[in-house]
Amino acid sequence: MKFEEKTLSKESIYKGNITEYTVESVELPNGKVSTREIVRHPGAVAIMPFTSEGKMIFVEQFRKPIEQTIYEIPAGKIDDTDTDPEETGVRELKEETGYYAHEFEFVKTFYTTPGFTDEVIHLYRASSLEEQEEAALDEDEFLELIELSFEEAWQAYEDSKIIDAKTIMALLYWKIELLQTNKEGENNG
Amino acid sequence: MKFEEKTLSKESIYKGNITEYTVESVELPNGKVSTREIVRHPGAVAIMPFTSEGKMIFVEQFRKPIEQTIYEIPAGKIDDTDTDPEETGVRELKEETGYYAHEFEFVKTFYTTPGFTDEVIHLYRASSLEEQEEAALDEDEFLELIELSFEEAWQAYEDSKIIDAKTIMALLYWKIELLQTNKEGENNG
Repeated sequence: MKFEEKTLSKESIYKGNITEYTVESVELPNGKVSTREIVRHPGAVAIMPFTSEGKMIFVEQFRKPIEQTIYEIPAGKIDDTDTDPEETGVRELKEETGYYAHEFEFVKTFYTTPGFTDEVIHLYRASSLEEQEEAALDEDEFLELIELSFEEAWQAYEDSKIIDAKTIMALLYWKIELLQTNKEGENNG
Repeated sequence: MKFEEKTLSKESIYKGNITEYTVESVELPNGKVSTREIVRHPGAVAIMPFTSEGKMIFVEQFRKPIEQTIYEIPAGKIDDTDTDPEETGVRELKEETGYYAHEFEFVKTFYTTPGFTDEVIHLYRASSLEEQEEAALDEDEFLELIELSFEEAWQAYEDSKIIDAKTIMALLYWKIELLQTNKEGENNG
């Protein structure tokens, strides 16, 4: 593979509950040796849930690394026992929002920031939502649900309440859908 | 702040050349105690460089965490001595591509994945490019420049050669620009 860096040695520095920090010694294409700091992550699924009124459901939650409470699309980590990302997505949507989605379509798989982590996110679009039960959050998870129209969500983006890559991507996909179906004028953003 | 988690203690596990891995003990909104694994990162700037023919310049590089050679928009880390992100962006564009951009517009600041890192990316749009000199890469940096039309870039996205969040965001912003100026039909993706 072009520009491939061969692993010479690998050291696991710390294995946390979610992430593992490793340092690898690699041989560069020119034969020199360098190190790479790599955060291993189990991967996640994120969901764009649309209500019957065409609003999207967001979760408002505090993110310790950035010390901010922000709006994000629902998401959750892949468990060892999940057979595929769709299973993770259906479960996480139910746990975080209480909704079951009768329509669940794959949108895109992407890496969040491949310079230092292997974290992958599988993005889905969920619709035909049916309220099934109360949300069942993890014991260290605190969040509130918010339904926003496209205009409200775009305002939250302008106001930096929506500020993470996966949620901005969800907004941009949504905007493209609206532009392609002419439901949105050119004056929005 | 809503759902805020107070830091009870903070441990620096490892301080690498680029990232620092820390584990924090936090008090949850319900008074219980949990831990947060946090990767500290200096932040980065990414650039959407447009040629006079309306193509975008990408860099092809190997990313060790995902063991893949992918196409990304040019990007680089913020240095301690940078006074603002635009300075970083202008320098990184020149170092990675050899181009100076006479027009350099801010697009958006976002967090790559705020569940476990504070990494922020400032995204800019660059145009009126002037070739100044040979690219001056870091000694552990190997990459090749590629200019792609929107259709070619979208194909690279479909083929998973473009697969990281910041570059997909760049493509989606580009697609929205084209849709809003009607330069693109509805049959492209």
